[in-house]
Amino acid sequence: MMATKIAYGAVGKPPLVLVHGGAGDIPDSGVRNKLDGVRRAAVEGHRVMERTGCVLEAVVAAVTVMEDLEGFNAGRGSVLTLDEKVEMEAQIMEGGNLDAGCVTLLRNVKNPIVVARSVMEKTPHTFLGGEGAETFAKQTGAEFAGDDYFKTSAAVSALERFKAAKSKAPGVTEIGDTVGCVAVDFQGHTATATSTGGINGKYPGRIGDTPILGSGGYADDSLATVSTTGYGESIMRYNLAQRVLTGIAQGKSAQQASEESVRGMTDRVGNTAGVITLTPSGQVGVAFTSKRMAWAYVEGDTLNYGIEQGQHLTMDVAEFE
Amino acid sequence: MMATKIAYGAVGKPPLVLVHGGAGDIPDSGVRNKLDGVRRAAVEGHRVMERTGCVLEAVVAAVTVMEDLEGFNAGRGSVLTLDEKVEMEAQIMEGGNLDAGCVTLLRNVKNPIVVARSVMEKTPHTFLGGEGAETFAKQTGAEFAGDDYFKTSAAVSALERFKAAKSKAPGVTEIGDTVGCVAVDFQGHTATATSTGGINGKYPGRIGDTPILGSGGYADDSLATVSTTGYGESIMRYNLAQRVLTGIAQGKSAQQASEESVRGMTDRVGNTAGVITLTPSGQVGVAFTSKRMAWAYVEGDTLNYGIEQGQHLTMDVAEFE
Repeated sequence: MMATKIAYGAVGKPPLVLVHGGAGDIPDSGVRNKLDGVRRAAVEGHRVMERTGCVLEAVVAAVTVMEDLEGFNAGRGSVLTLDEKVEMEAQIMEGGNLDAGCVTLLRNVKNPIVVARSVMEKTPHTFLGGEGAETFAKQTGAEFAGDDYFKTSAAVSALERFKAAKSKAPGVTEIGDTVGCVAVDFQGHTATATSTGGINGKYPGRIGDTPILGSGGYADDSLATVSTTGYGESIMRYNLAQRVLTGIAQGKSAQQASEESVRGMTDRVGNTAGVITLTPSGQVGVAFTSKRMAWAYVEGDTLNYGIEQGQHLTMDVAEFE
Repeated sequence: MMATKIAYGAVGKPPLVLVHGGAGDIPDSGVRNKLDGVRRAAVEGHRVMERTGCVLEAVVAAVTVMEDLEGFNAGRGSVLTLDEKVEMEAQIMEGGNLDAGCVTLLRNVKNPIVVARSVMEKTPHTFLGGEGAETFAKQTGAEFAGDDYFKTSAAVSALERFKAAKSKAPGVTEIGDTVGCVAVDFQGHTATATSTGGINGKYPGRIGDTPILGSGGYADDSLATVSTTGYGESIMRYNLAQRVLTGIAQGKSAQQASEESVRGMTDRVGNTAGVITLTPSGQVGVAFTSKRMAWAYVEGDTLNYGIEQGQHLTMDVAEFE
């Protein structure tokens, strides 16, 4: 990992934009909705990638699509804290200069990923949280919404079920977790973006893995770009994104490094997670130890997607649109 | 790093407690004070280690000493935000189960490292920030202090100089940065603790590397325990602590991995940093790209310490006490 020379990927290979819609114990009734959302996000990310040629634009576009949909645990569909608030987090990173922007404990902002990008581009800092982050978001003209926008009936009833179950540990709910996107362009430049509402019934002030560079995501043009999802405490303690990069550095394929890393996390610190990975040369990795994780990407005219273990479905992009 | 079997260190080797007092452009006038503080912290950490046999007790004791001293940028001596507030951060991690506790945006708490430990031991979470973290700290009986305790004349004048200089980027001041401690016991169990006031003139809500697992510190009994200090944004973007662990995993010595990692960070993303590293078998690593970083540890009856590049001084522990 002590790269002294950055070896970029296969110049000229078509760009890729790979998204996930959260690892978790997604019930059968949620499958259709999740698949529809990740396909929509992948198609939009790919479209923006083709139009702008910019990996940052692509990952922000894809994540924004999912933040705006009620069915994902990020932005609008975020789960609630124990005191019934929405506290959101996000990170964005680009793999050339390792520039990054992260936000946490953000309330009432419609698109946390946009604020994360502003932190990267408009402040001397990498990570802002809480009131300071909100003040900054207002200064940059970020769009805000009232509590009624965020308190969806799904989030409210999920918290009610959590409280009724008297579970000791806040958990990833059937809503699923965290959305994310990784992208690579013609030149092998990489970026990653991840956004979440955290875990259902979390303590006020709880920070998860999503805004943590090396845990919730990481992008390095010399190795790979990664976005993770799942039980944040375990992901953070294991530095899941960095484990994938270490595997890549050891010569493993994107798929092998992704599989071994999520299994290694579950074995060492417990709970489940998922990762999506792209290398600068266009290798794709998709792996999760949870029951389900929706994912999708466009290659040529084909939309690739899946949500079950080992599943890889395809359809014409034109058919989806 | 995908350890399937944890290979513990040299059983029976005496425990080690290694501390740092922050990497930075420490002026000549600050050298004596810093050296006195880190030696005091190392001696206290070592004493607690011998009495309790517990690496967590040892790292908390050593960091608490420095949080209580005005001359370090952590706890009492923390630097100020642009709006003249103290917002502190800390992390603690133990290398067996990878259990960890992190806090950020914490105001008026005397010893953030104690709150970080409570997060680890008393919540289902790993990381708490802001008001939620303060509410939790109150519930656990953490000691609080008024603004007058924290607003030291050194911190106030440092912010005044920063504002007068009209610097574009908040910076590590002559106060120095972040305090930290790593420890290993007879059985090769490891722990790390790090605490900071952040960087002078930072935006309200700015979060640095200190509470970020894999950046501000990391402990893994299969590899090493690390605490970092320096320019937080660069440390976070580079995942500095994990780079040291990767070096160790590649067979490098603690010293070599530490040196290469800080140099690698400065080369790739700019700014300076320092690290202290201990392996389960008792290898010591101390490296920094800043002008100075005070460090100290006790071995047998000897107190080892230094603050300049390449400096390694010794004295009898009895002589210091």
